[in-house]
Amino acid sequence: MEKEIPVTSLQRLPVYLNYLKSLGKPEGNISSGAIARALGMGEVLVRKDLAYTSARGRTRTGYDCGELIAAIEEYLGCNRILPAVIFGAGALGRALMSYGGFKNYGIDIVAAFDTDPAKIDKFVADCKIYSASEADEVIKNTGARLAVVCVPANVAQSVCDELVGCGISAILNFAPVLLKVPAGVNVRNIDVAANLAILSSQI
Amino acid sequence: MEKEIPVTSLQRLPVYLNYLKSLGKPEGNISSGAIARALGMGEVLVRKDLAYTSARGRTRTGYDCGELIAAIEEYLGCNRILPAVIFGAGALGRALMSYGGFKNYGIDIVAAFDTDPAKIDKFVADCKIYSASEADEVIKNTGARLAVVCVPANVAQSVCDELVGCGISAILNFAPVLLKVPAGVNVRNIDVAANLAILSSQI
Repeated sequence: MEKEIPVTSLQRLPVYLNYLKSLGKPEGNISSGAIARALGMGEVLVRKDLAYTSARGRTRTGYDCGELIAAIEEYLGCNRILPAVIFGAGALGRALMSYGGFKNYGIDIVAAFDTDPAKIDKFVADCKIYSASEADEVIKNTGARLAVVCVPANVAQSVCDELVGCGISAILNFAPVLLKVPAGVNVRNIDVAANLAILSSQI
Repeated sequence: MEKEIPVTSLQRLPVYLNYLKSLGKPEGNISSGAIARALGMGEVLVRKDLAYTSARGRTRTGYDCGELIAAIEEYLGCNRILPAVIFGAGALGRALMSYGGFKNYGIDIVAAFDTDPAKIDKFVADCKIYSASEADEVIKNTGARLAVVCVPANVAQSVCDELVGCGISAILNFAPVLLKVPAGVNVRNIDVAANLAILSSQI
């Protein structure tokens, strides 16, 4: 991806993809207006979102359906598989292990880690929970560079440091703390409560 | 909140709050530079974040610690309790029910709903799971206007319609679909996989 796409645009791409596939006409054309009407969205927004992909619409005829599907799939990385790990197999970590949506983006959760002996060596949705002490070996074997941090706030920084030491260079953090990482490591934070708080302010 | 605060700023406010409280000196002063250094952040960013609250720093002396704590608490709504419900008590819904972070923002998860008889009338972290058929009555009794949608994509729109019918006016949606809502209802989407996909593009 050349330019960073906003999350809101990125999360609409699988919606377009599902809709286009549901039409079952890879040889036909479709306009951004038709997509917008079918999905109850603005046409300008649809065109803007699709412009992040390599697909180019033509005046009057619109997009070639097959080309558009291929362009979205390529953009979303459906054609490659990227391994990722989850650190922390508590309620949230296990929920993410069993979440199917990662496949939409070509991401495969290959392992999880926890320090609780009762969880280690258990499986959740085909994904094994390893001891945190095995993280270095497992991460290097799987070649994962992506990690999801689902541990309590008070241990998140030390887990983050350990992951970076294992070669992880991109972290999705659910712990409500600001992780300090060296240059070259990217962190994105998901704070569920903060999102709910913003909504609450709009009631 | 007068102006919409970015999620990234909002999620740093509890971090400042925890830090300020940890100092244990409500009668002293603290500068934005000192806060920034302690938390490993930029000073301009700290000042910008704190400007969303009613706290006003003074040249040289900085902020009055007690006033700053009170301003952040007021902004985060720590002084009021807002009831919210969760629809869908699957793995993610249950993880959110047991998540303690909502209290940071004065949000209280008062009930959850599901259609699975095996889950109904069970409790997760003091929160009861009700039958989806009781949603209207329970939501009206609790006065909740906020809901979190954690159901599969194929039923998310019908659940959303039902919630709106029960008086819900703000929805945090985890299902990877675009919910159509009437004017006056706000929706925010959290797509975990989309966030991970953005990170993966930066590796």
